[in-house]
Amino acid sequence: MSKLIGNAVVGQSGGPTAAINATLAGVIRGVRENVHDGSIPRLYGMHNGVEGLLEERLVDLTEFFADESKIDDLEHTPAAALGSCRRKLPKMGENDAVYEKLLEIFKKYDIRYFFYIGGNDSMDTVAKLSAYTKGHDYEMRIVGVPKTIDNDLVVTDHTPGFGSAAKYLAVTMQEIIRDCAVYTTKAVTIVEIMGRDAGWLTASAAIGRGVNGIAPDLIYLPERNFDMNEFFASVRAALEKHPNVVVAVSEGIRFADGTYVGEGTQSGVVDAFGHKYLSGTGKALELAVKAEIGCKVRSVELNICQRCAAHVASAIDLEESVAVGRAAVKGASEGVTREMMTIDRISTKPYAYKIGHNDIDLIANQVKRVPDAFINAEGNNVTDACVEYLLPLIAGEVSPKYESGLPVHVIID
Amino acid sequence: MSKLIGNAVVGQSGGPTAAINATLAGVIRGVRENVHDGSIPRLYGMHNGVEGLLEERLVDLTEFFADESKIDDLEHTPAAALGSCRRKLPKMGENDAVYEKLLEIFKKYDIRYFFYIGGNDSMDTVAKLSAYTKGHDYEMRIVGVPKTIDNDLVVTDHTPGFGSAAKYLAVTMQEIIRDCAVYTTKAVTIVEIMGRDAGWLTASAAIGRGVNGIAPDLIYLPERNFDMNEFFASVRAALEKHPNVVVAVSEGIRFADGTYVGEGTQSGVVDAFGHKYLSGTGKALELAVKAEIGCKVRSVELNICQRCAAHVASAIDLEESVAVGRAAVKGASEGVTREMMTIDRISTKPYAYKIGHNDIDLIANQVKRVPDAFINAEGNNVTDACVEYLLPLIAGEVSPKYESGLPVHVIID
Repeated sequence: MSKLIGNAVVGQSGGPTAAINATLAGVIRGVRENVHDGSIPRLYGMHNGVEGLLEERLVDLTEFFADESKIDDLEHTPAAALGSCRRKLPKMGENDAVYEKLLEIFKKYDIRYFFYIGGNDSMDTVAKLSAYTKGHDYEMRIVGVPKTIDNDLVVTDHTPGFGSAAKYLAVTMQEIIRDCAVYTTKAVTIVEIMGRDAGWLTASAAIGRGVNGIAPDLIYLPERNFDMNEFFASVRAALEKHPNVVVAVSEGIRFADGTYVGEGTQSGVVDAFGHKYLSGTGKALELAVKAEIGCKVRSVELNICQRCAAHVASAIDLEESVAVGRAAVKGASEGVTREMMTIDRISTKPYAYKIGHNDIDLIANQVKRVPDAFINAEGNNVTDACVEYLLPLIAGEVSPKYESGLPVHVIID
Repeated sequence: MSKLIGNAVVGQSGGPTAAINATLAGVIRGVRENVHDGSIPRLYGMHNGVEGLLEERLVDLTEFFADESKIDDLEHTPAAALGSCRRKLPKMGENDAVYEKLLEIFKKYDIRYFFYIGGNDSMDTVAKLSAYTKGHDYEMRIVGVPKTIDNDLVVTDHTPGFGSAAKYLAVTMQEIIRDCAVYTTKAVTIVEIMGRDAGWLTASAAIGRGVNGIAPDLIYLPERNFDMNEFFASVRAALEKHPNVVVAVSEGIRFADGTYVGEGTQSGVVDAFGHKYLSGTGKALELAVKAEIGCKVRSVELNICQRCAAHVASAIDLEESVAVGRAAVKGASEGVTREMMTIDRISTKPYAYKIGHNDIDLIANQVKRVPDAFINAEGNNVTDACVEYLLPLIAGEVSPKYESGLPVHVIID
């Protein structure tokens, strides 16, 4: 593959995570450390993804991050420091003006490298842009860099950002279970966890089982139909064993007829991609248990803390997130294009991985769900194999810089 | 004061905090380090406070914590390791059998020292027990040791446990504000914070203002009547300045007529089971802003994480929590009784404190609210004086022990 000399642009898209800035830091480090052998003179950042790119809202990251300590702090900054967007590119042939405009901007800034850090919808953008530029005589290398707390991208063993969300959940579950254990009265605590279609995050609530045996009594993932009577029976059985029952439920659990358990309490709002906006699964179950069993019940919705709690990020997740960004720069300079970077697991005990990449068309708009082997027969917990898969992803603690008691975050103006 | 030789008993009562075990550790260390000059041979722990004491559910803590590293881990364990209760002792004269039973148990175990770690209701227990034993010829030293995330005890500058909850809130607000900043669409995020009668915790959301200028746009405490129209006007004004408005509200905010904002408002939505959905304060305001302003709105209820997030505890809070427990042991051996230990602030810049104590009858059943000087004229934020008061209480980070990615907690069987 011939050497391609030109500037690079990087963007962040989709929901924020605690590690998406670590991947941005990886791209910045890759360019800064010249892993591309001099083929990338300058790195631009697009504010708010392709939305900002179309408005030429670009920032010179080579200049902004001239001081390396700022890159260290960026790795510990939650959410998307470049800003994000939920804009989906049109189907090719529908509105090619958008693509023409993008090509014009690439040419104007001599941009030959395009790195897009995001989840499913962002990989759709990468795939479409790849397909478009393929047919034009302006050579570009377009690489998707995964991130999503949902861990629902195919081909990669797991996604950057997932490990930190999983660690937040596993740590928080330990703390919640301690909190719930202080009284002797029978009580049920229902913890609602993010995950519309894939139960990876909810499964992470179980990780403690592999460490100290302490985990929620019951775990419900969207991969299985939810049955209210079976749920009541399981809660009753758990209450027989000890007074403080803790249940982890995914926001996306559905009844056999396809309706969401939390659907009644949501407003019917649909996001830009047509996804139903869910909230209230835990609350719905709280009311149901109160009515049916009559004991003390409480629901806790962990909400956006799951994706932004950078102070308790997973060290291995941040390491991999940086690595995947750096590898994207190196790979692209060596000819990788129309691909998404991947994390390939080499072994689980001891944990080892390498960074790879795979055809973007295999990835976009697909969902990797929790496999059958990871869910127990009753559908009310995960298996030991699942815990074994998850455990290495939360390894290690981070040491973000603090000033006067608060973590230092980087804001890119 | 003559030397009083006898065993000690310690209990925990009321809602859990991230620091109540640090105070327990302080009492254990105090006995272990012989700060009482040999007057306390043995320390018992009561399971579930006075409730367990009445059932003689006692654990020998001198033996259980023979290994000192276990005490270190206890300091980083959230919630009440001895278990808690909400039992209030009867008014004297109403049911003296309870007091007679307690006295019998004290005599049986040769208990002369009684340490009770808790909040308002627990100090009521200490006051009543003090009053009862005063009139009997079995000499005892009875000391209350404060804890509450609410910071609503009078006489003490602040309460052990508050600093850690405040730090969790201040750190989480930084992360939530970063998370909210990623999109360009106008949006309001309402964060509901614990505090029924006192707004100290909600005020802590503002701490970032004193560090990096980043804090919620609006803050509502229960110390001021809440006016919906003024709230809408303030939100509109904030949305003019920037698209991502963040509001911190106390769960206990009330309208001028005394009804809770979260109590009076039903969303009108019915859940999957036909139950009417009774919203919380944040949810009620979310629906109100959605209806009135029409922009994207979200509410986040931080819930019990506020009191159990030991992994992000305040180092100064844990230090003080241990100190207050240790000082209680020393003080009691020197004659202190019918008192609550206090933290007395010596100076704010630089922060300095000493441990004191004060008459328990001045403390029980009183509520310390956020003073007028700490709330702005509009009643929609706190003053700089408030931030200055709060800032030293979140200083320093802790390093709990981790095993396989999870914090190590101590469980007392």
